Amino acid sequence: MELLKQKIMKEGIVLSGQVLKVDSFLNHQMDPQLMMEMGREFARRFANEGVNRILTIESSGIAPAIMTALVMEVPMIFARKQKSLTLRDDIYVQEVFSFTKQEKNEITIAKKFIKPGDRVLIIDDFLAHGEAAFGLARIAEQAGAVVAGIGIVIEKSFQQGADKLSAAGYRVESLARIASLDNNEVRFVEE
Amino acid sequence: MELLKQKIMKEGIVLSGQVLKVDSFLNHQMDPQLMMEMGREFARRFANEGVNRILTIESSGIAPAIMTALVMEVPMIFARKQKSLTLRDDIYVQEVFSFTKQEKNEITIAKKFIKPGDRVLIIDDFLAHGEAAFGLARIAEQAGAVVAGIGIVIEKSFQQGADKLSAAGYRVESLARIASLDNNEVRFVEE
Repeated sequence: MELLKQKIMKEGIVLSGQVLKVDSFLNHQMDPQLMMEMGREFARRFANEGVNRILTIESSGIAPAIMTALVMEVPMIFARKQKSLTLRDDIYVQEVFSFTKQEKNEITIAKKFIKPGDRVLIIDDFLAHGEAAFGLARIAEQAGAVVAGIGIVIEKSFQQGADKLSAAGYRVESLARIASLDNNEVRFVEE
Repeated sequence: MELLKQKIMKEGIVLSGQVLKVDSFLNHQMDPQLMMEMGREFARRFANEGVNRILTIESSGIAPAIMTALVMEVPMIFARKQKSLTLRDDIYVQEVFSFTKQEKNEITIAKKFIKPGDRVLIIDDFLAHGEAAFGLARIAEQAGAVVAGIGIVIEKSFQQGADKLSAAGYRVESLARIASLDNNEVRFVEE
């Protein structure tokens, strides 16, 4: 998505070979017009997948997910992230490891919001090792739903998440795919 | 806002005289069309306030805030919530007490995203004791910005937040104002 790539080139800050900071428009300050355009683009790419529910995870996934939900006219559910949890039988729980923070979180979704046969589109802001996306996919499948696709704002293609998700049979669509952050420079995957 | 009140009557679950559960459309599953209508309503009510920035707090504030930002065509910034923090001089920090969870959090916003003279609209999903709204207002004022208004989705008018914010001179606009949750029943403030 050209508009997003331009924004990354203009405002993204490369903190290391692994970390791109985009807090001026994606995960702290947010550009609502860009969010809307991303929602339109996800809706366009997954238009033929029969999506009836969008899943994401707090906090930075919420804005792109709600815009996609608005365009697709389906409800959106965001998973809660917590350190650890007392067991409750009305929620689905999956363990997700954050490489950035080097900690385990549990993500949860109330059972009443995903049903067998649902076709779920997963939306998230970043795809690195794929932990969050796999966690959401496992919850969807635990509920008997089908993962209709995974939409990512920024994919760090030099890490393993996208390959692993594709190998597991998921359709992954990323709006910007980053080949490398070496030498303080953003290089996109040639498409 | 009539549409919101109807939704509360239809889907809200009164858990106690203090707690209304609205996780089917506001803070777990989200209804994107309703979010958009709420964004339009906030934009309408604060149209003459010269707002150039919207502030909220993760996670449930993000969706109504991004919709309001979309309609008003201004950037949105969401504060991060954390247990406690190593000191850093590039962020504003305020302590906020959560009565629901009975714990203190620190909320933070990067200094570069609020400037002296900014006119900030604060948006949040619930107003109870006013802790989160006061925390965001203190951050805005610490930055030399002006709080142009506070927009709330659901105000629990039987708690003290709205009165305290008004007494402090803030303009508070709530889309639904709840007078009481006694006897397992939602009663709105007569307007």
